[in-house]
Amino acid sequence: MSREGGHGLILNAVVLGVGMHPAAWRLRDDAAFSSLGLPFYQELGRVAEAGCLHALFLADTLAVGEENFERPNLGAMDPLMALAAIAGVTSHLGLVATASTTYNDPFNLARRVASLDHLSGGRAGWNVVTTFVPAVAANFGNTPLPPPEQRYARAEEFVDVVRALWNSWSPQALIGDKLNGVYVDGAKVRAIDHRGEHFDVRGPATLPPSPQGEPVLFQAGASEAGRALAARTADVVFTAQNTLAGAQAFRADIRARAQRFGRDPDSIKVLPGLLPILGGTEAEARARKRALDELGGDAELKKLALRVGVPVSELHLDEPLPIELIRANGNFKGAEGFRNAAVELGVRENLTVREILYRNGGGHLQVVGTPEQVAEKIAHWHGEAACDGFNLMIDVLPQGLGDFTRNVVPLLQRRGLFRSEPNGTTLRSNLG
Amino acid sequence: MSREGGHGLILNAVVLGVGMHPAAWRLRDDAAFSSLGLPFYQELGRVAEAGCLHALFLADTLAVGEENFERPNLGAMDPLMALAAIAGVTSHLGLVATASTTYNDPFNLARRVASLDHLSGGRAGWNVVTTFVPAVAANFGNTPLPPPEQRYARAEEFVDVVRALWNSWSPQALIGDKLNGVYVDGAKVRAIDHRGEHFDVRGPATLPPSPQGEPVLFQAGASEAGRALAARTADVVFTAQNTLAGAQAFRADIRARAQRFGRDPDSIKVLPGLLPILGGTEAEARARKRALDELGGDAELKKLALRVGVPVSELHLDEPLPIELIRANGNFKGAEGFRNAAVELGVRENLTVREILYRNGGGHLQVVGTPEQVAEKIAHWHGEAACDGFNLMIDVLPQGLGDFTRNVVPLLQRRGLFRSEPNGTTLRSNLG
Repeated sequence: MSREGGHGLILNAVVLGVGMHPAAWRLRDDAAFSSLGLPFYQELGRVAEAGCLHALFLADTLAVGEENFERPNLGAMDPLMALAAIAGVTSHLGLVATASTTYNDPFNLARRVASLDHLSGGRAGWNVVTTFVPAVAANFGNTPLPPPEQRYARAEEFVDVVRALWNSWSPQALIGDKLNGVYVDGAKVRAIDHRGEHFDVRGPATLPPSPQGEPVLFQAGASEAGRALAARTADVVFTAQNTLAGAQAFRADIRARAQRFGRDPDSIKVLPGLLPILGGTEAEARARKRALDELGGDAELKKLALRVGVPVSELHLDEPLPIELIRANGNFKGAEGFRNAAVELGVRENLTVREILYRNGGGHLQVVGTPEQVAEKIAHWHGEAACDGFNLMIDVLPQGLGDFTRNVVPLLQRRGLFRSEPNGTTLRSNLG
Repeated sequence: MSREGGHGLILNAVVLGVGMHPAAWRLRDDAAFSSLGLPFYQELGRVAEAGCLHALFLADTLAVGEENFERPNLGAMDPLMALAAIAGVTSHLGLVATASTTYNDPFNLARRVASLDHLSGGRAGWNVVTTFVPAVAANFGNTPLPPPEQRYARAEEFVDVVRALWNSWSPQALIGDKLNGVYVDGAKVRAIDHRGEHFDVRGPATLPPSPQGEPVLFQAGASEAGRALAARTADVVFTAQNTLAGAQAFRADIRARAQRFGRDPDSIKVLPGLLPILGGTEAEARARKRALDELGGDAELKKLALRVGVPVSELHLDEPLPIELIRANGNFKGAEGFRNAAVELGVRENLTVREILYRNGGGHLQVVGTPEQVAEKIAHWHGEAACDGFNLMIDVLPQGLGDFTRNVVPLLQRRGLFRSEPNGTTLRSNLG
């Protein structure tokens, strides 16, 4: 398949606790709790920017349960707050915050993302999620998590309200004429007067347009409703893909859907997650993986069980996935994208659970190997139109991110695939 | 009256747009729009910290209307976002964000304030407000602004939920034992299981206790309900007081109320707002005030009319306030504290509107004079038990803040009233 949508490779770093591997905190040299402070986040920003990555992408969760107490990967601070603190120590790195449309209010969220865009000089992004973890609901009232179709209906309207607020001040509204005392041209600031099924919002926004006008929208839902929302509104789609063919099909589908919404398919970028576990040799990489897994106990296996929606007792390391059982689960509450990716990998390549765990890191494409092997995988998928780049899921933060930028990025640059300097001052211009 | 509660003088700087005077933006040398970016906020943080002030206090508003288009003083960015960005360039300055209990959700807000506390190493404060501007309501649904008693009932419960979340992890919960793989002692993290009239929140918080455990609570309501909330929950009370006697009575009342809640009255600090308009001589200060007023047109008069709840046409510069008319307004929707302060000043000292505008700056105590005169006023009020310090309302930002810290702070230090270095690493320890 020849490559369509030929633009430069995009690479973002995802931050989820102190790394994607459940045992990350046990392998780190740093003090156990440093992920809660400013130095941790600033270090991530500096390393990602030095590596010329496009953005730092902060995941989020709105509840902790017992499963989190084994490790600090989930349940950290408010992503927008952390990114505001990173803005000051970076100058071209994009800053993308995950925030739920189910458990936020559009007026407040629009303002917070616009605030980040102002503070960062146009580098803000919002990863639109609808929340699929039932436990979150109990932190926000006595109503259970709404079903997906209701969540997505609210999300569609939420995004529309946020964008209308971002556009409620004309770029020409700010006059700032000190001599004549005219600060704003009131005729160029309009109420949005939104009256919808989920929201009534008069507007206008409380602050003038931010440098990007509209901060960049990320979206990650893989269900029918998720794809529809992404195709209509997202600039970037984050997806879990474990096979080249699956990734190609997903990207082609998103591009076709975007076109049906009247959009240029090149204006929507598809980024699968990629979890590299690096070593100077393949044996070293495998040793790193083994060391992490030993420290993690059965955490990876439990996560896979959760991803595919069966009890962990039904997974056996040297047998294939119990496909019949997985398909029979009519009560699946997890993310479709993660389930599909793991099942497709297992079925297509006839893998055992153990083999799947080597290729599927926390749900995402995983490469255990040398920098050359990781660069080759990236180049291959990009060349075969399976993606526009990757969201890097780093095993151990911040150290694993530095390993990637120091060892893999130069190989991609030498191949002419990845930029050596930023190509713009805003996230939108950097994404092309 | 002799001083009770003898502790060091507290001084915070309030940030409201580019300064408290409506014409601030026209007097500034800086580019008209710079208040929207990181450099403006970082500069304020650096100047306040260099002056050894206790905290930067960000005001907030959740709606803009036509009255704001004349000037950029209102309608700026999310205070918590700006403070997160300031955290990185300061090391002991307190960071206090205003946030509404009427238009936020306790789970999200508790997390955001705790995030600021983590990012700043224990310097976060939350100024609890209930929102009294009716226009805000239309940005959050189709329900009008609730009446004060309903707003305060919600605020009381909101604060309880937030504090319960902040205390949902025992300080001993974080184990971080890498060798044995025990990150958190789950028995020391408890759901809060709050079931109330306004909120159902299970908890626990998603993140471990922040350095202060409980970030510092500010409160500014002057009504009966506002004073009750402050006396029960606040660490610091921000108040508009235009006369020494009024300030003494207010502080004594708050201290007595706190005692009735079983609190040590010294644990609650009362800070009136103070707007200094400085000049090397009194004549220079008056010239600065005159220059600002000329640039501001009738903005100060309009604001006073709004504060006391009568049409601006009823105010005449060389006549007293229309007290009968003010008292007859049964439909007053503004802040009681501002109205009381202005009326009391006018009545007690038999002042004309013009004279009131010289002593009441945007509702607060105003001193137009030399650094010595301002220092003398501060020392006098502090010595006479009228306050524990002041929230400084700066006329033009950032320049007026530097004028204060360079010229007034050293005079207060020479008198032994104000500290020359921070006395702790957290905001709570600095407030004493």
